[in-house]
Formats: sequence, C-alpha cells, structure tokens
Amino acid sequence: MADAPTDPKPTESKPPAPAPEAGEGGEGGEKQSKKGAKKAEAKAKKEAEKARRAAERQAAEAAAKASGGGAGGADLAKDNYGDVTPQTKVDAERTSLRSIGAEHVGKAIKLRAWVQNSRMQGAKMCFVELREERNWAIQGVIAASAEGKPVSKQMVKWIGGIALESYVLVEATVQKPLEPVKSCKVSDFELHITKLYVIAPGPEALGMSLAVSNRPINSFDDEDPNAPEAEKAVDEVKAGVEGVTIDTTPSASMSTHLNNPVMHKRAPVQQAIADIRMATRKLFAEYLDAQGFVQFEPPCLIGAASEGGANVFQLPYFEKSACLAQSPQFYKQFEIAGGRKRVYCIGPVFRAENSNTPRHMTEFTGLDLEMEIEDDYHEVQDMLEKVLLHIFRGLKERCADAIDTVRAVYPSDDFLLPEPGKEVRLTFAEGQKLLREEGPEEYRNVSDDEDMSTPQEKALGALIRKKFNTDFYVLDKFPEGARPFYALEDPENPKVTNAYDFFMRGQEILSGGQRIHIPSVLEARLRKKGIDPNSQGIKEYVDVFRSAGVPPHGGGGIGLDRVVAWFLSLPSVHLASYYPRTPKRLVP
Amino acid sequence: MADAPTDPKPTESKPPAPAPEAGEGGEGGEKQSKKGAKKAEAKAKKEAEKARRAAERQAAEAAAKASGGGAGGADLAKDNYGDVTPQTKVDAERTSLRSIGAEHVGKAIKLRAWVQNSRMQGAKMCFVELREERNWAIQGVIAASAEGKPVSKQMVKWIGGIALESYVLVEATVQKPLEPVKSCKVSDFELHITKLYVIAPGPEALGMSLAVSNRPINSFDDEDPNAPEAEKAVDEVKAGVEGVTIDTTPSASMSTHLNNPVMHKRAPVQQAIADIRMATRKLFAEYLDAQGFVQFEPPCLIGAASEGGANVFQLPYFEKSACLAQSPQFYKQFEIAGGRKRVYCIGPVFRAENSNTPRHMTEFTGLDLEMEIEDDYHEVQDMLEKVLLHIFRGLKERCADAIDTVRAVYPSDDFLLPEPGKEVRLTFAEGQKLLREEGPEEYRNVSDDEDMSTPQEKALGALIRKKFNTDFYVLDKFPEGARPFYALEDPENPKVTNAYDFFMRGQEILSGGQRIHIPSVLEARLRKKGIDPNSQGIKEYVDVFRSAGVPPHGGGGIGLDRVVAWFLSLPSVHLASYYPRTPKRLVP
Repeated sequence: MADAPTDPKPTESKPPAPAPEAGEGGEGGEKQSKKGAKKAEAKAKKEAEKARRAAERQAAEAAAKASGGGAGGADLAKDNYGDVTPQTKVDAERTSLRSIGAEHVGKAIKLRAWVQNSRMQGAKMCFVELREERNWAIQGVIAASAEGKPVSKQMVKWIGGIALESYVLVEATVQKPLEPVKSCKVSDFELHITKLYVIAPGPEALGMSLAVSNRPINSFDDEDPNAPEAEKAVDEVKAGVEGVTIDTTPSASMSTHLNNPVMHKRAPVQQAIADIRMATRKLFAEYLDAQGFVQFEPPCLIGAASEGGANVFQLPYFEKSACLAQSPQFYKQFEIAGGRKRVYCIGPVFRAENSNTPRHMTEFTGLDLEMEIEDDYHEVQDMLEKVLLHIFRGLKERCADAIDTVRAVYPSDDFLLPEPGKEVRLTFAEGQKLLREEGPEEYRNVSDDEDMSTPQEKALGALIRKKFNTDFYVLDKFPEGARPFYALEDPENPKVTNAYDFFMRGQEILSGGQRIHIPSVLEARLRKKGIDPNSQGIKEYVDVFRSAGVPPHGGGGIGLDRVVAWFLSLPSVHLASYYPRTPKRLVP
Repeated sequence: MADAPTDPKPTESKPPAPAPEAGEGGEGGEKQSKKGAKKAEAKAKKEAEKARRAAERQAAEAAAKASGGGAGGADLAKDNYGDVTPQTKVDAERTSLRSIGAEHVGKAIKLRAWVQNSRMQGAKMCFVELREERNWAIQGVIAASAEGKPVSKQMVKWIGGIALESYVLVEATVQKPLEPVKSCKVSDFELHITKLYVIAPGPEALGMSLAVSNRPINSFDDEDPNAPEAEKAVDEVKAGVEGVTIDTTPSASMSTHLNNPVMHKRAPVQQAIADIRMATRKLFAEYLDAQGFVQFEPPCLIGAASEGGANVFQLPYFEKSACLAQSPQFYKQFEIAGGRKRVYCIGPVFRAENSNTPRHMTEFTGLDLEMEIEDDYHEVQDMLEKVLLHIFRGLKERCADAIDTVRAVYPSDDFLLPEPGKEVRLTFAEGQKLLREEGPEEYRNVSDDEDMSTPQEKALGALIRKKFNTDFYVLDKFPEGARPFYALEDPENPKVTNAYDFFMRGQEILSGGQRIHIPSVLEARLRKKGIDPNSQGIKEYVDVFRSAGVPPHGGGGIGLDRVVAWFLSLPSVHLASYYPRTPKRLVP
C-alpha cells in the first residue's frame, strides 16, 4: 500500500512464533484469591518473552547481513517476500477461502489474510495458518527449493518470523494435503506459497492470542468483584450439557477481552455471535415490513424522564438539562397518534442502573413495535409471538453454522420452540399456580398480585420446559401493581392489566400490552399511581391524547441483547454486545 | 373498544364543524414585529370559538333530551351511531381506501378513519371527509331517510357535530359520485354512510388544523430569532420554481408545529417525508448488504470525546464522566481491525453545537460505512458514490407518489443526477479553480489550502450544475489542514489528503477518506496536528493499530437528515427529522 514503508527489502526477521500465549486471566477454574499472583506471573512471562524475541531478532539480522546482505549468497527470491510497497504486484486471481474447491487444485490464487499461527520445520520449511474471516483458515506451506527460487531459505526464515496477526498478501498454488488439516476449517486443501508480503505487521507480543480469545470467558468478576454470578453460570451451563468436559486450555477474563478489543473481536466465536445478532435484527425488521409496519426513529435526547426519574442519565444541555431515553415508549405512541397504523424502531436505550449482573447494561438495543388494535389486544400479542418465532426459526435456518461455532465454545442445549398451534400462553395467575403446585418448596406461597423475582421466573421456566417442551412462552394479564401507568387495566378485572411478558429459558425478554388511549382514563390511572398528570414530561404525554382522537393501540419492547444471549445460552448479555457498557466500563 | 365509555347512547352532540383554523403563526409573509399581537389575537379567537361551541352543545343536548330522549320522536337509527362500546358490531368487509375500486360499487364496506372535515347541508344531510393514512381521504355522505332508518335526522346532526380528527368506525356503501370529488385523493368514489361510531373523540378545538399542518412552515424564526435564514430559504426556493405562486392559506411556524406534534405528524407532507426518509435508510442498507457489508452497532456512551473535546455532550456516569459519540468513526475502524472486511452502521450521533441554522441539529442520524481497501482508496469513493446513486434512483422509482406529495407543499426542481459513467469528481483544487475563474466576484482569490465556507460551497454547486448538469458530485483530495488526524496524507503530495466530501445541490452530505492504519504514521500525524498520542481516548485508539496488523481501510459518513432535506429541497433539516433536537428544543 502507498502508505507502508517503502523499502522493498525485508526489514525484519523474526524467530519462529511461539505457541499462543495465555491472557492475563489464567486457567478456567482459577480462584479469586490467586488472581494477583497470576497476573504478576503472566506479566513477567510476557516481558521475558519480549526480551528473548528482541535478542533473537538481533542475531537473525546480524546473520542476514553476514550472508544474504552482501554480494556472496544472493537471495534469488528477494522480490517474492517483504513488506508491501507501491511496486508490489501479484497477478493471480483473488479467491476467498470460502470458495476454494477441487477446481482450484494446481492453480495459483491470491488472497489477503491474517497469520494466525506459524511453525518452522527445519531451516527450509514452514507451516503458516492463514485466516480470512470468522474461522475461515487454511494451512499454508512454504518450502525452499534447491535453486533458491521462487522460494529461498531466507524467505522461509523471514516468513517463519512474521509476527502473529500480521496482515499479509499471498500468492500460492492450491494443493490437496497428504491428510486433512485438522487445525483449519478448510481442511481438504492447502496453499503452497510462492509470494508473501506483509501489508500491516502484528506486534511483537500479542496482548491476547487468538486461541485464548476464542475460549470461554473464565470470569466476569473484575467487572464487579462482588457478583460472581456469571462465572458460576458458565460452569452451570457446561455441567448441564451432556458429554461436555471442561477444557483446560488457558482462557481469560471478560476484562482482559475488553482490554484487547481487536483480538476479542477477531475470535471466531465473537464474530459468530455478531452475525447472529445482526440476523436477529434483520429477521425482526423483515417480518414487520411484510406486515405493513413502518420504521421510525425516536430521539435519544429527551426533555424529561419518560418512565419515572429513577435510573435515568441526565446531562447539561445548553441552558437546560436533558435525559437519555430509557425506552421509545412515548414516541412509539406519538407515531400511532400521528397517524401511522403500525410502527417499529430499532435503537439504543439507556438505563443509569448500578446493576453489575450478567443481565444488565447501561446502554442496550431495543427492538420495539406499536400497532393499532382493531378488536382485541391479543392481536398485538399474536404479532409479537409471530415475529419472535420468525426470528427463532430464521436463526436456526440461516445461522446454523454460526450457532455451531458458538456452541463449540459455549455449549448449550437446542432452544426448544413450541409446535405450531401449540404456543404456550398462561395468565400470570396460572403461572403462579403452577409454581405453587409443582415448583420448589420456597414458592408454595407466591402471590397472584406481586411481580416475580428472577429466581422465581427461572423456576417457572424450568417447570414450563418440562411440562410443555418449550423454552419460549408468554405470561399474560400481569397484576396491575406490576405495570406502569400507561398500561390498560382489564375492563373485566381491574386487578390485572392487558399486559404480558415474554420469556426465553425462564428469563424475560419482552414487556408489552395495551396502552390507555382515552385521556380521561389515563389521567385517572396516573392519579391512582400517585403521579401528577400535570408534572413535567407527563403533561406533554397526556396532551397528545387530548389533542386529537387516538386509536386503541398496544405494543412491546424486546431486548435484543437478551434475545441473542439467551438463545445461545451465553453466560452474560455482555458477550452479545459489540461494546458492552456497564457501570464500571465505558471503553473501548 | 373495551376501555371506551360504556354508554351505548350518543353522549355528545356538536354543531357543524367550522372551517379549519389557522395555526398561531399567521400568514406566510408575516413580519417578525407583528408576531406578539397576532398570537394574542389567535388565542382570543380560539377562546371565543370554544365558548361558542360549548353553548351550542348545551343547547343541542337540551333539544335532544326534549325530543329524542323521551318516548315521543323515537330515534329508529339510534343503534347505528354513537360512541363505540364492547357491543358495537359492524359486519361488512374491512377495506382500505387505497384498495377501493369499481368492483366495490354498490357493496358495503367497513373502515376506520379520521374525520378530517365535515359540512352540514340543511338538516338532513352531511358531508364528512374521512382520512386513513397520509393523504388517503374519501368523501362520506350521510343522509336521513324519510322513515328514519338506517339514518335518522338525529344521526345526521350528531355526525355533523363530531369533533374534527376524531377516530371513527364506519359502515358504508361505495358509490360513484355525480362528479369527481376534488378535495379528496379518492375522487372517483364516495361512501354512503349507514353506521358511524366514535372510537376516540377529537378535542373541542384543534391546536392546529390539518389544513394548516399541511402548509409550508412559514417561519423557523422562533427557534432562533437571530437566524431568519430558513424563512428566506423557503421563499427563495418557491421564487425559483417556475409557475409557483405563493399560496396565502394560513400557515404556521415550526414552533407551532412542534407544539402540536400529533397534527404535525398527521399532515400528509410529513408522512411523505417520513416515508422517503425510511426508504433512504432501506436503500442504503440493502445496497451494502448485497456488497458483502455487515451491519454493526457502535455505542452512544463513550469514555472520551472521539474527535476533539469541542461540541461534545458530557454527562455524569456513576463515579466517572461519559461523552455522547459525535460519530462512530473509531468504532467503524475497530470493526475493521477486529476482522470484518466491510461494515456499516445506522444510528444517532450527537453534537453539542450551539448552531441555530436550518442545517444543524444536536442529534441526527448517521449512515456510516467502512471497508478494507484492496488497491486504492478510490474503491471506497466508488462504493459511496454507488450507494448514493442507488438511493437517489431508488427514491425516484419507489417514492414517486411521496415526492409529489412533498412537492405540492414544498415545490422543488427535480434532483439532477449525472448520466451513468459521467459522474462528476473534481479535486478540491479543481473546484477552487472553477470558483476563481467562473464564480462570483468575491471568490476570485479562494485558496487551495483552506476549507470552503457554506456560501462558497453553494456557489460551486451552482457552477457545477450549470456546467455538468448534476446536483450530485464529489470533491476529492481535500487540503491536509481541513481534515482530522486520522486522514491519510496523499503519499505523492502531503499538502492534500486521500479524503473527499460529497455534495447535493451545493451542500455537503458526506465526509470520508482513507484512514491511517500504520501506528507509527498515525503517531507522527497526531504530533503534527498538535495532539498527544498518549492523551485520553487517543491512546486507546492508537493502541488498536499497535495491537495487531490492521488492513488499509477507508469509509465515509452520510448525514441522513441532510440527504432527505436536500433531495427534496426542504428549507430545513428539521423537517426531515421525526423529533428535531436543537439547542432550544428537546420536546416533544
């Protein structure tokens, strides 16, 4: 490339790359108390490794000067390797690893890839693992010929010394290996390298190796030393899946991962999770588009806290103060009031909640919809159920490969779906009855009028899985006290609301229901909830329903991060996010 | 509906609705100084109207009690109108206004719509305009029969008195009108109403009528009394379009519109703009999906200002402080570093800029992409040019009807596109030369080394339109001083960068270019720009390029609001936004 160093001669020579290093977190089962010592040890190891490499490089450079550099043993392959320059030219056809097939055998191809591993075999041969995207990797072989071209001994040595995770341009001939290459996804072919140039060099020592980055996170502890819930969760998940033994390859903590964002993101497991996340978004939008929904964009900056003042981020806004939206709730309703029949939105929402758990983040993505009700609010519940089933079935169909990649790192049972026509919808009261009658001892006295706790939800999820063979179900008619002021009370039983939650594996992923659309009813319920209908933010909301006739409507909000995390049984929603935001973390 | 008042008898009777009222803003050409007086006058008028209506309603109710209420003149149609109740039943087939055709003539249909206007004709007949979405409206006719059913005189009177913008359920027979109904989009059919129920009543007096809300905004002044730029812009646009005479129907200010969000949103012009906006998003995503891009989600909450400390919103974040992202720039690059070849994102970005102009908002939507460069950064420029051309052509094709709806309110010349293969790309220096040689007098001495001002850009846009017959073009090779620290300098001429801006009608909509991917080059340029490579936020950024080899890459960021506004020649980006955020406005 134009902006790379312009010396066409190799400038650096490195010793064979060592085996992947461990991240700072140490082994999987490590105890909290040993952490300090381990950290210091890892740091010392890294420093020693760095010093050793520097010494070896100096020796190699001196040797190169003594032999190849002079007029003596001229390097006949010298134009076939080195750093990329504006003059670098590789004419072979560009081919991606995904598309290599039998028809390529014996032919020259060109590709750009990361050096994910390399291993010298004697002085004349080297194996290099080349990776494109996700886990698409292939074995490259570089062997010096007797006449010293197209590959010389110097070239082999230089390639063997390339820093791991350097980005390189390669010309090679596709060949069948003697036996399948187990360590690479492309196992039936290998590349016999004829040219190799470094486009962007990797560092002398990686902060975290690819092998470590693709192992399960061994601890979420240093995000909050007092909440070892997530770590326990990993082991629980693994212990619960038949035939899975806990791998002892070095692994790292979530903190180490997030402090090494590039290597964290290069891990095939993270790219697979990202692909599944984006497929989820797309499946959501595509289903709703087909049902006549229109997308819209709610604001993030708002004048007053929409759903109560707690947990809201506030900021100075010129001469005023602003809040960050906790949900697009009001704005979805404004769109319906403004004449759209069905709307959805996908975007960030914010909660200033000091919760350090695997289920919480301060910024996450909401998949929200709102629609006019023609006859009954179950129309909305149907729509939400259908869009979620479309997502789950779509993921299984379109992302089978990515799901396998994730399961190889985070083993999980298949996500059970109800048979078509046998979707599970219980009322909240029916759910409580099930818990009382068939649940664990401690839930013998749960009430129909109070919201459930997280352990209660999980216990009910386990009961429903056993009884109905599904990980996905709906609880309808939530008690009035558990729902916000805009929820419509059931006209036949005002102790409950026309509102529901949806669950995946016993964990809530969606809240929704019918909203009040008649201003006098809204004012009465606000007063009942102890909220002044004329208070800031609330008055503007009620005014919307006063300003013109608004159709009956309802909707729901889905937490994208949770859908992805629970579908895959990940130990934390933080793994499903691109850049998780927690009370303790704002970087990268 | 279940939650509507349960009295099956009509509860309210209203006099014929008056003609649509003016918003508070007064006439189009109004002067700033008259505003206070006008406002007071409008308020007084509104109060008087309200009082008059209340009196009329009381009289009507008394009359109803005296006649229809007793055993005397029993209302044989009483079940065919009133407020919707759980018992309300209309069996006819649900049909949308869009789909009414010759095959429906003589048949009964059911629909739900807003009463957008009504007019009594004598005591036995009433015309009611019913609107579904955007400008899909039809004329309804309600006439009392001699025998008093299915329609009675009482029913006609009650319907004539329904508040405007009430939401109603209607049963009617489709008929051909004697002559086309000019005031409605569905002009070849009318509805002979047999049943009509109010689902949600409108207010006694609308804050802004639909007719006013669908007129061009007459002033953006009260957003900032010192910047009458936008108002001027409206008149300029109108004056510049042939055959357009300035309409004198009452219109309102942007502030009146935003204070009446429901009516603002019900205006056909606003729904058409929203549809065009969403089509733009969709065209962007669909083109990039087909080119192998993957979407990702950058965070809004970040630890440090990404592009310098100016114009950044800051907020308390638990024990720390956070910023709102000014662009997804760093995160797009992190994704490329993290192993994705091509990425895009669509989401909110924030600028704490105290700019009160028609081009600025504090929160807006960015359409961003970033991609690996194979050989040359013009690959990126090509991609951006192609995605924008795909958007422009797609809008003309898919949104012709919506564009017409907008043009009926905000007239504009067609947006000129270059012929395929004749795309206009000038270097910044060539653009400046054109300005010097063929532009207005005051630009005789513009420099090749300094960024352009907005008026300069507009003058160049006019020149290019005349010379190349296009409203869309690219300026490449921006001067080094005009670009941020991450822009790569042209290796052949370090006075300029491998960076470009894209323009629509002489206004910038996109900035982009090749980024520095080699950490030593990045550090050197940071120092040259006077930025410490180890400062907060910057160090983490440079570390990304130090932590592993990163491919050469480039990209660009498109302002969605500007694309929509300038494509349609709207007088302000605020009209293209769902909920515009400016230094003076955070509601609704």
